[in-house]
Amino acid sequence: MIRTSCIETAPGVWKLTLGSGERITPFQVLSRRAAVDRMAMLPKAGCCPLDAGQITTRKTRRGFEVHLPLAPDEQIYGLGLQLLSFRQTGLKKTLRVNSDPRCDLGDSHAPVPFYVTTGGYGVLVDTARYATFYCGSTQRPAAPRETGPQRGIALTTEALYAARNSAEFREMIVEIPGAEGVDLYLFAGPEMGNAVQRYNLFSGGGCVPPRWALGPWYRVRGDFSQAQITAFTQQLREEKIPCDVLGVEPGWQTHAYACSHVWSEKFPDPAGFVASLRAEHFRVNLWTHAFTAPSSPIYGALLPHAANYTVFGGLVPDMLDGEGRKLFTEHYRKTTVVLGVSGYKIDECDGSDFIHSPWSFPELSEFPSGADGEQMHSLFGLLLQDSAARLYHSEERRTFGLVRNSHAFAAAQPFALYSDLYDHRQFVRGIVNASFSGLLWCPEVRESASGGELVRRLQTAVVSPILQINGWYIANPPWKQWAVDANNNGEFVPGWEAWQERCRGILELRMRLIPYLHAAFFRYWRDGIPPFRALVFDYPSESESRGIDDEVLIGDRLLAAPLIDDGPPRRLWLPPGAWADFWTAEIHEGGKFVDFPVVEGRFPLFVKSGSVLALAFPTLHTDDPRAFHLEVSIYGDGALPAALLEEYAPDRPFDRNQANLVHLAWNSQKEELSCTREDPHSRPLYSVSSVRFPGKEQERLS
Amino acid sequence: MIRTSCIETAPGVWKLTLGSGERITPFQVLSRRAAVDRMAMLPKAGCCPLDAGQITTRKTRRGFEVHLPLAPDEQIYGLGLQLLSFRQTGLKKTLRVNSDPRCDLGDSHAPVPFYVTTGGYGVLVDTARYATFYCGSTQRPAAPRETGPQRGIALTTEALYAARNSAEFREMIVEIPGAEGVDLYLFAGPEMGNAVQRYNLFSGGGCVPPRWALGPWYRVRGDFSQAQITAFTQQLREEKIPCDVLGVEPGWQTHAYACSHVWSEKFPDPAGFVASLRAEHFRVNLWTHAFTAPSSPIYGALLPHAANYTVFGGLVPDMLDGEGRKLFTEHYRKTTVVLGVSGYKIDECDGSDFIHSPWSFPELSEFPSGADGEQMHSLFGLLLQDSAARLYHSEERRTFGLVRNSHAFAAAQPFALYSDLYDHRQFVRGIVNASFSGLLWCPEVRESASGGELVRRLQTAVVSPILQINGWYIANPPWKQWAVDANNNGEFVPGWEAWQERCRGILELRMRLIPYLHAAFFRYWRDGIPPFRALVFDYPSESESRGIDDEVLIGDRLLAAPLIDDGPPRRLWLPPGAWADFWTAEIHEGGKFVDFPVVEGRFPLFVKSGSVLALAFPTLHTDDPRAFHLEVSIYGDGALPAALLEEYAPDRPFDRNQANLVHLAWNSQKEELSCTREDPHSRPLYSVSSVRFPGKEQERLS
Repeated sequence: MIRTSCIETAPGVWKLTLGSGERITPFQVLSRRAAVDRMAMLPKAGCCPLDAGQITTRKTRRGFEVHLPLAPDEQIYGLGLQLLSFRQTGLKKTLRVNSDPRCDLGDSHAPVPFYVTTGGYGVLVDTARYATFYCGSTQRPAAPRETGPQRGIALTTEALYAARNSAEFREMIVEIPGAEGVDLYLFAGPEMGNAVQRYNLFSGGGCVPPRWALGPWYRVRGDFSQAQITAFTQQLREEKIPCDVLGVEPGWQTHAYACSHVWSEKFPDPAGFVASLRAEHFRVNLWTHAFTAPSSPIYGALLPHAANYTVFGGLVPDMLDGEGRKLFTEHYRKTTVVLGVSGYKIDECDGSDFIHSPWSFPELSEFPSGADGEQMHSLFGLLLQDSAARLYHSEERRTFGLVRNSHAFAAAQPFALYSDLYDHRQFVRGIVNASFSGLLWCPEVRESASGGELVRRLQTAVVSPILQINGWYIANPPWKQWAVDANNNGEFVPGWEAWQERCRGILELRMRLIPYLHAAFFRYWRDGIPPFRALVFDYPSESESRGIDDEVLIGDRLLAAPLIDDGPPRRLWLPPGAWADFWTAEIHEGGKFVDFPVVEGRFPLFVKSGSVLALAFPTLHTDDPRAFHLEVSIYGDGALPAALLEEYAPDRPFDRNQANLVHLAWNSQKEELSCTREDPHSRPLYSVSSVRFPGKEQERLS
Repeated sequence: MIRTSCIETAPGVWKLTLGSGERITPFQVLSRRAAVDRMAMLPKAGCCPLDAGQITTRKTRRGFEVHLPLAPDEQIYGLGLQLLSFRQTGLKKTLRVNSDPRCDLGDSHAPVPFYVTTGGYGVLVDTARYATFYCGSTQRPAAPRETGPQRGIALTTEALYAARNSAEFREMIVEIPGAEGVDLYLFAGPEMGNAVQRYNLFSGGGCVPPRWALGPWYRVRGDFSQAQITAFTQQLREEKIPCDVLGVEPGWQTHAYACSHVWSEKFPDPAGFVASLRAEHFRVNLWTHAFTAPSSPIYGALLPHAANYTVFGGLVPDMLDGEGRKLFTEHYRKTTVVLGVSGYKIDECDGSDFIHSPWSFPELSEFPSGADGEQMHSLFGLLLQDSAARLYHSEERRTFGLVRNSHAFAAAQPFALYSDLYDHRQFVRGIVNASFSGLLWCPEVRESASGGELVRRLQTAVVSPILQINGWYIANPPWKQWAVDANNNGEFVPGWEAWQERCRGILELRMRLIPYLHAAFFRYWRDGIPPFRALVFDYPSESESRGIDDEVLIGDRLLAAPLIDDGPPRRLWLPPGAWADFWTAEIHEGGKFVDFPVVEGRFPLFVKSGSVLALAFPTLHTDDPRAFHLEVSIYGDGALPAALLEEYAPDRPFDRNQANLVHLAWNSQKEELSCTREDPHSRPLYSVSSVRFPGKEQERLS
């Protein structure tokens, strides 16, 4: 037991120094500043949420152990983007970075050594090592007894291995390989959600994406040329498909596995290409990865600032080495940022050494900064995000991108995670699980087995942080043909126009939601509340909510239950209170399970009764001024006002001083909508086009 | 680089001490004696097969690394029971003990830190830690170059991640977590197979099972009582189903998860039960595991000699603690061995902490002996095997059992591995992969999706070390009903009698093979040659053999290619030389791929042309004296004599001095079969009943 200190390092955050920690940890290496001012607005926490005296440690040949108490019924959530399980209670998770986790063992694109519990606190274990968390899964010997409880002889393997640990003594054990100590950061509640808020604010507060990043993204086929992409985008506009971001895949580089980081001859005029798309209100997002080919102009200079092993034959730049980082980012500044590229899709940074054909740098790699491969695997995506964010910040530009690896303290990073995986159920779980760990998740849409599946996947994308259709291996939009080969052969499904119409409607719903989502992200920044989150986040004391990982709370007024398969009805749980069906305004009393009859074109989406909900006119892109025309709906008594964010410098890094809050409140006595601006002298951006009373139209018209 | 010494520790075996190794390793803790006398009979090895000067090491915070050279085309095999891949070249394998490996990452029932290569040598890394082997999967940075090789833009994930490491520099890297050094044992060739022979002989030589262990095993349903089992065995005999070993599942204990190790009331007379089965020529094999329930009579005494965490609420006995081991084995001596029980099926010792619902002791467990959980996981099965073997040895009895975990130096242990897994293709791969690492594998037969599948699985079991039908969750033999629920409901398939007939035929083939298999096991003991092995073992220079993991060499005369699915023909590769179809005696010229037309009741089984093959009369059990009546077949010119083993004390531990070799040679000039005994004065056991000339019957009769 080697405890050095326990201090309150930020409001409601205690730092517990145990033994002698490592130098390279997420806290140490990430440039971030805790939002202390905003943390001060959270409920006061009088003392450290765990009794430090009950936390014990042990140094072994294997590494460093921390043992933390658990109450008998305490439920555990978090540990990053766990796609295969929601509640971590009773599980053993090793936080290895892996792009292709097949088993529920902790492997993840974004394993985060942070968990929260229904005990109302959070614990961040500040390590970049592949730590193992025994989440109440271990048991100590009991006293001898005369006779054991008699059990029938099991006749299935399931029965044999059914969890049969009694709860006589429960603990969380964290084992950190190779370490001699670690710092813990303990985040106070009182509720679990408050602990997450504190964690996000301690990370700098959630990121506020530009409005365009909340519109639909479309990535075109990887081998498309400049001319093909231009033609494709023209068709999107002609066919009235909403789209804000156009994603360009590997074909833009002369060599992609590894990367040359140089525009290929398929793009004879990169600056003109980006500018012409921008003129059509598309932002260009560029795919790339960090592994640098011998043919890259920066290869020679990067060699001394890279790992001693390669990936795809390319150098692994040491993103903890100032010179290596600078070489890398300066090259991207000159060749992409100044051209107007809006951001990146940073691929392959998760690596996968845990598949049949391992391809990433080994954990035993050495980096010039002193990091080893294990530490760098944990931090690689985070450092790349941070580098890109700082690059754009230095140009006074806002960015938003996609990334395939992340870790601790990532809330402020302007990135969402994505994956090559494609299980729809896991994708939905990803949305809610990400919310415990300061992550955003993009369950992208690619091919489908049926039109119905395509629609359901697109609906799920609507209720996720980023809505992206990723056509990297299909030449045409998936609603014309959802089967890959036929799509590439230009064989469209019969009646594709009707499918396109349905999908357009879904994308338009997303466009209508942008003001609402933008405001929810502002609360992510200000209060640390994830814009998309699990039900248990808001309803921790409702036991039903503790196991629900296929429903999503969006902002403070909406709840969605994505449809995974085509079998109606969809059974879902509604939290206590009255909830209006978004489509029919029918009121459901919550606090119980309901069966939602699935109707074509709809999915379970509910509005908290009493809400003032402001939706935008559905435009083709967020630059369209009509995107600020609001249709306001008053649900129930309208007692819950709406707050929307107006940004005056939307293309520059987010600045609270260049943003305004608009409050839309319904006065049920006067039957009047009031619109109040935080700064009354500021220039209005939003305007109310109409006010509706869902479910009461008839009544009011009569 | 910390090298202390490199010495030849046994003929053709060099011990390389690198840094400061650990105290608890397979070499240190396993009671075994190298068969130095028999090793001396192998080809002389002048010097250490690897240049020790080219082996480098590195101590890091993560552990200890060993880097070994690899030639450009060198192929790697071994690493224990790898069910998911054969050739390890280019893979990264972490040798974690896991009963349920879903990905090809090294997890295994029996991960063994031993590999051999087509370079003609073997390397044993003497560690009980979960070491990682980078089998030529890493690459170092190249010099910058003007332009890289142009590649098309990939449009599938498979194309993206296709292995694209060039072979400019290849090495094997072994990383041992937490270690500060390790001993390597280098086994000389000249061929890869010779290195395996040396490894097996260094382990004490392969085990010689009693003949009864080579007959069919049948395990009955887990909840059967003494009376039910007796009735079941009577029916087996009545229905003329060959069976030598009767397996009793958990129901024999009063409490099974965890174990009380006490006979339950379902077995009112254990001694009578075992004796009565023995009278019917069944050996009783008892299922058990080591995790000891609080209700067990040994629980209290075991408490101070057990781990600090439990499994299924049961104690984990410290098998490295002399007192703990003694408590455990003495209990089993008194309650089972003296009753005549023939051996154990030692379940659950592999553990599975790498599944969704982890249940075994954590790697961070502490044992009184000083071992931690990681080390004990690696060694647990080995120590349990060793304890059982010594227990029977001390009673001057022979045993043979089943076990679910093993590790290094296991060749002499009287156990075969088995699994709850059931993928037929993996089961076949298991037979050949086990052969590189001193392991035996039992691809047991349970339920099936069809009668055809049942037949194919049973055929595979014939060409594996142990043939077991495991009915632990079915009440009736699978040939009466292969679907579980219907089987338990007593609903037999229409025409089950015909299926039983076919299955009986397969079991009779096994009975006929016993003299041949018994002799092959003797060569495992004497020469270290695995009785069942991969083609590349005997034909390392044939490039086709290097990838074949669905064909099995059996002894020195037979080759089998199990049928995995029902789609004929079966394509298979025959090694150079002439091979006779076992069923038709048709001659196939080898050195190429052939398509075997699948005919009902047959599977691809070939006899090396020129063989004298002696098969037994198919009896119902090996006690039947007619099991020693031989039908000798002369293939081709009969120039390859047969050698059979006669044991005079078959129920005592194997003793070379109580065994005799019989050579059956065909004199083609005199057209005469000679039968020569090593010790001409010994009592003959085998007798020749008939001599046949497959494929030449007509010719000779005319």
